[in-house]
Amino acid sequence: MPKLVFIRHGQSEWNALNQFTGWVDVDLTDKGVAEAKAAGNKIKAANIEFDHVFTSVLKRAIKTCHYALENADQLWVSETKSWRLNERHYGALQGLNKQETADKYGDEQVNLWRRSYDTLPPLLDEKDPGSATNDRRYQNLEKRSIPGGENLKVTLERVIPFWQDEVAPKLLKGETILIAAHGNSLRALAKHVEGISDEEIMGLEIPTGQPLVYELSDDLLVKEKYYL
Amino acid sequence: MPKLVFIRHGQSEWNALNQFTGWVDVDLTDKGVAEAKAAGNKIKAANIEFDHVFTSVLKRAIKTCHYALENADQLWVSETKSWRLNERHYGALQGLNKQETADKYGDEQVNLWRRSYDTLPPLLDEKDPGSATNDRRYQNLEKRSIPGGENLKVTLERVIPFWQDEVAPKLLKGETILIAAHGNSLRALAKHVEGISDEEIMGLEIPTGQPLVYELSDDLLVKEKYYL
Repeated sequence: MPKLVFIRHGQSEWNALNQFTGWVDVDLTDKGVAEAKAAGNKIKAANIEFDHVFTSVLKRAIKTCHYALENADQLWVSETKSWRLNERHYGALQGLNKQETADKYGDEQVNLWRRSYDTLPPLLDEKDPGSATNDRRYQNLEKRSIPGGENLKVTLERVIPFWQDEVAPKLLKGETILIAAHGNSLRALAKHVEGISDEEIMGLEIPTGQPLVYELSDDLLVKEKYYL
Repeated sequence: MPKLVFIRHGQSEWNALNQFTGWVDVDLTDKGVAEAKAAGNKIKAANIEFDHVFTSVLKRAIKTCHYALENADQLWVSETKSWRLNERHYGALQGLNKQETADKYGDEQVNLWRRSYDTLPPLLDEKDPGSATNDRRYQNLEKRSIPGGENLKVTLERVIPFWQDEVAPKLLKGETILIAAHGNSLRALAKHVEGISDEEIMGLEIPTGQPLVYELSDDLLVKEKYYL
């Protein structure tokens, strides 16, 4: 029976500072590391054995993946990393303090940027030194395919092709799969897997560091959903 | 220009205990972790940028790979793990203390097991609980393809197909490749890459935690070889 496990990375340095992060490659805090290890311990206690793991190209997800696997005694499992599992790109908001941004633009605007399915944040200019176009890890993407800012809708549009091409084929073979990723890339996947509407999806909050298990039918419909 | 970097993992728990290790999946010691991080710092200082990394399915090599990549700011680089890069399987000697083994069998016999190119160690029975046939990570291999003990010759015979199929094609495209592995799997690769004879290869000792760089011609002949 196909089994799918999500782990949302725990506290990062910018979570701790209350800053918009997006594609900025910040590290986990000690608390975030402890959350990842605890997730691994839960996986071990549940006797879940992965056939393949997926993560983003951002170190807070990669390290969450590695710490969890290590504590589950499965660091040897093969791993695929992809930019398509990255957090939602937060555009020009990246690096700004969330409270200061709310003070400047108003709560309503910031809430829209944070909680609307299809409102884009202010975009980050390609010439900005923080633009992903300057980052070697995206060098195999043409510039126009590198986002300057995303809403959940756009995030979903780049996550689902990866699901279809890389993840679903393994689940269809009956494999057990781990995806260690981010609040919004996992939200996009959950929307697809659970069939959640555009209106309801922003209400879904996957807790950090708590493995979310989907037991799936042969055709990848959700039979059971639970947290470890 | 193709570039190939080897890192031999640093001190493991059983290195510290002077025990034969082989395919037993022991962890790095704190000293081994420090060696891996130092290797990453050297790679960063040398501005080496990897396109792909390879490691074994044993955690002392995988963790060396991850710590080195993290300190080189390249944890996002895609990674392939394979049993073909594992340490030489030490057969029934695995877990035995090297000094006690020498006391029992004599220095000459132990030296032959350790330093001969083609002498096999006593084999580990497939029914032994420590046999790799009982380990899920080798489940895609038929039992007769799982070694019960190897010399360097046999190690080389399972390493080189991986080199030919997975590593060399990337180097032939001009990529920069890291292989984080073990004393004998790296020795086997060095024999192939440098064209070292059967008689001379056991004299080659790659130091732990010290990145070995090969700058290669388009046809993967060694143009320069140096340690960082």
